[in-house]
Amino acid sequence: MSTPPPPGLLDAFGAYESALLADDVSTLDLLSAPGDGTVRADAEGVLVGHEAIAAVRAARGGAPLRTVVRRHVQVIDAEHALVVAETEPAGGGRGVQTQLWQRFPGESEHGGWKVTAEHVSEPPPAIDARIWRIVGEPLVPPTADGPLTGQTVAVKDLYAVAGHPIGAGNPAWLVGARPEPAHAAVVARLLAAGASLRGIARTDELAYSLGGTNPHYGTPPNPGAPHRIPGGSSSGSASAVALGQATIGLGTDTAGSIRVPAAYQGLYGIRTTHDLVDRTGLVPLAPDFDAVGWLARSAEVLQAVGGVLLPPGSPGGSDELVFVPELVGLADADVEDAVLAWMSARGATSLHAPIGDLEEWREAFQTWQAYQAWESHGGWLRGDLDVLGVDVRSRFAHGATISPDDAERARQVVRRAGARLRDLVGHRVLVLPSAPSVAAPVATGLSLEGRTATVRLTCLAALAGLPAVGIPASTAEGLPVGVCLLAAPGRDRDLLALAAGTVRP
Amino acid sequence: MSTPPPPGLLDAFGAYESALLADDVSTLDLLSAPGDGTVRADAEGVLVGHEAIAAVRAARGGAPLRTVVRRHVQVIDAEHALVVAETEPAGGGRGVQTQLWQRFPGESEHGGWKVTAEHVSEPPPAIDARIWRIVGEPLVPPTADGPLTGQTVAVKDLYAVAGHPIGAGNPAWLVGARPEPAHAAVVARLLAAGASLRGIARTDELAYSLGGTNPHYGTPPNPGAPHRIPGGSSSGSASAVALGQATIGLGTDTAGSIRVPAAYQGLYGIRTTHDLVDRTGLVPLAPDFDAVGWLARSAEVLQAVGGVLLPPGSPGGSDELVFVPELVGLADADVEDAVLAWMSARGATSLHAPIGDLEEWREAFQTWQAYQAWESHGGWLRGDLDVLGVDVRSRFAHGATISPDDAERARQVVRRAGARLRDLVGHRVLVLPSAPSVAAPVATGLSLEGRTATVRLTCLAALAGLPAVGIPASTAEGLPVGVCLLAAPGRDRDLLALAAGTVRP
Repeated sequence: MSTPPPPGLLDAFGAYESALLADDVSTLDLLSAPGDGTVRADAEGVLVGHEAIAAVRAARGGAPLRTVVRRHVQVIDAEHALVVAETEPAGGGRGVQTQLWQRFPGESEHGGWKVTAEHVSEPPPAIDARIWRIVGEPLVPPTADGPLTGQTVAVKDLYAVAGHPIGAGNPAWLVGARPEPAHAAVVARLLAAGASLRGIARTDELAYSLGGTNPHYGTPPNPGAPHRIPGGSSSGSASAVALGQATIGLGTDTAGSIRVPAAYQGLYGIRTTHDLVDRTGLVPLAPDFDAVGWLARSAEVLQAVGGVLLPPGSPGGSDELVFVPELVGLADADVEDAVLAWMSARGATSLHAPIGDLEEWREAFQTWQAYQAWESHGGWLRGDLDVLGVDVRSRFAHGATISPDDAERARQVVRRAGARLRDLVGHRVLVLPSAPSVAAPVATGLSLEGRTATVRLTCLAALAGLPAVGIPASTAEGLPVGVCLLAAPGRDRDLLALAAGTVRP
Repeated sequence: MSTPPPPGLLDAFGAYESALLADDVSTLDLLSAPGDGTVRADAEGVLVGHEAIAAVRAARGGAPLRTVVRRHVQVIDAEHALVVAETEPAGGGRGVQTQLWQRFPGESEHGGWKVTAEHVSEPPPAIDARIWRIVGEPLVPPTADGPLTGQTVAVKDLYAVAGHPIGAGNPAWLVGARPEPAHAAVVARLLAAGASLRGIARTDELAYSLGGTNPHYGTPPNPGAPHRIPGGSSSGSASAVALGQATIGLGTDTAGSIRVPAAYQGLYGIRTTHDLVDRTGLVPLAPDFDAVGWLARSAEVLQAVGGVLLPPGSPGGSDELVFVPELVGLADADVEDAVLAWMSARGATSLHAPIGDLEEWREAFQTWQAYQAWESHGGWLRGDLDVLGVDVRSRFAHGATISPDDAERARQVVRRAGARLRDLVGHRVLVLPSAPSVAAPVATGLSLEGRTATVRLTCLAALAGLPAVGIPASTAEGLPVGVCLLAAPGRDRDLLALAAGTVRP
């Protein structure tokens, strides 16, 4: 192993390192081996194939400034060598990169040397500010022992944590916020049940988004689908749970903000029956739809939290699983296949009842949501919508233009749709996709069309105030997908039990 | 690259993975290639050589439970292959391990396959609880713009941060602590000068240790010397700065708690003149020796903080560098060589004045320190020393047994020694090693003899209340070492300027 490096290898290594620092993407592409077998690993996951690596590299903007301080070369033969390089980043700490180099004899540049596999470690930050605003060990200890002893909570930055301001996903909001005098009702209950608070997790601005790509604080990673969006607006809570940085992700769901990140990241999640769980100490978005929700990596933890936050009992009903083909068909083919496979394994039966005008419902939902959102926050925003990111700003700006008459018309549609949906669900359990698509790549984000298609599906639970539990499934390609169970208002505990398998369908 | 894996490789990979989970150290050693060229990299740094890797592996207790979910094999030839494995840890997130395998034909077990290089990434925790108790982005924003705008502070968990309890490195202390009503004086000054607080950093228990190996919260990593102790008691502040997780490490120095971690981790550090900087809001250890101090990765930042926390001006004096061979000789040979090299490059001249009975001084220092420490904390500890770790407990237990007469005798020696040292230093700058040894391996820790030898050297500044600035240097082997500059009381700014090179010696 003390064989001298083959000719040209160290020059190629040096050229690669320089290109990394200079963000010279074309040199990097040249020095990266072609084909589908090239791999690149880092803390976010593994990228496979020259093209996938090049696409992520083109989007990220170079490596942090650093110096190579030690190099360990293992020569395999004249055409293969492994280089492990220790770096000192200008910002402190140590970095390591391991590269397998291969010489491609036909190539003239850089002696034909190219990287076929790469593994990069950078020094970790004190806090991943894409996921968290503040974290502690713990941030807040439990106030008593109980059924949640040992569990750790990521609190969406819309709930009051005593002694801390609420940030609501927006820097201008945070600057104007004062420390909260008391915990939000659900936060206090979790602490009294034995859970500790791990920290305050990022949210999309004022919860008014489904992508999780907060423009101020960055996009939390999605470990279930690396380099894809996390889903929002409970994005920080979801990523924290998916990464194992907390066991319970406390969030909210107005138009899908629990169900969408659960689906995108492969988590369990619940949106509770509207008005069933106390929202004291929660910043509102659209109070007619806002619901407390939470995420977990297992159905058992999801259920245990329900045992603490939900009132006892259930209005009763059956565990019969039904689905409406028209609703399942709102999803992309890969998601539809996954949901159909899940249902077929559990003997769900098809309902051919007519539903209603889904597009009219979606429009009425978004109108009444925007009107209520402006009622909630227009006073604070008036005159300075520029404190918001582009997407959320456009939603509030639209809300400001809705006339009371238009709003009232929308509200009537919402009422009728809700009644129709409650009737459709009845005493049964309705199965549908949690979101119509898998998580989009970060480079693309959730398009406006994607958002509209998502809300068309996710607004149903909100229109009717139904509880909704998301269960993780997977596409044929291995990407996370959510199966969503809806039931009559108040049947939250039944859905949690169903998800936990304590009642087998 | 889609060549099928050579016979036996995947079996060996499987055996290695099973042995990792089972902490089967002998199988791991067998599957790890012999010799000095074998390398193992992770977020803490790179270990080189079979023996070094085996030693760390034997001490750590297995890998976290996980499942391999994807494997990428690059076959190089019949005797070499690279395996990149993606894992799903039971606790969440994603892990990656890259291994270069080589077949050793003479060996029969596992087909002769062994790992020659390995690079491991595990999902990061929300907070590195060895370094921090709480962190934020920021934890506390600045109260004004100023010379420290953009700097981030790791606050040793002995200083008051308004709204948070002080933890003092001990869980029992933290349980009994209430949120502080106001910031410590120096914390308020840093915020008013533009710095933000990154978080509250771990300390050894009540600052009564020099190793940094807090038994309750774990040992902060030392990126300057991976797998070696960080030095304490300002261990969390030092590791945070070395890792680039904060730019300023606020700490204290009673018997070396700034200078030792600075030396071990390759940082700049200052212990200020005794009583020159306001200690309001700081938990005391031994008030006759306690001094405010801080750490930074550059002399410029160290000096900029001095510009904010130190009173203006200096009593004056020269920048003449002198040293006492007897003091430099208290260090191990590798440290001595590094300090001599530093001094010789700067033309320091040797003083052959007699000093005094260093052993008597060390003993008197530790007696008076222990007596004052018991005065500070005996009331809280009385009856329950078991809340402390073994080492710190023994120091407090000893303090409890010191009679007022013995304490007074020690104090008289302290006074005489201080006067003698102030006289020796005079208007000049005395150079000595910051600590007599490099950082010990974590597996060994700082022995009692090592601690005694360290205090013999580090107590000198404390006995005389002198300012001390630590400057990073390096042994021939590349391990961090500290060069310490002492000067007359009040000459803190002169030392900082000297270290920053604004006055060249």
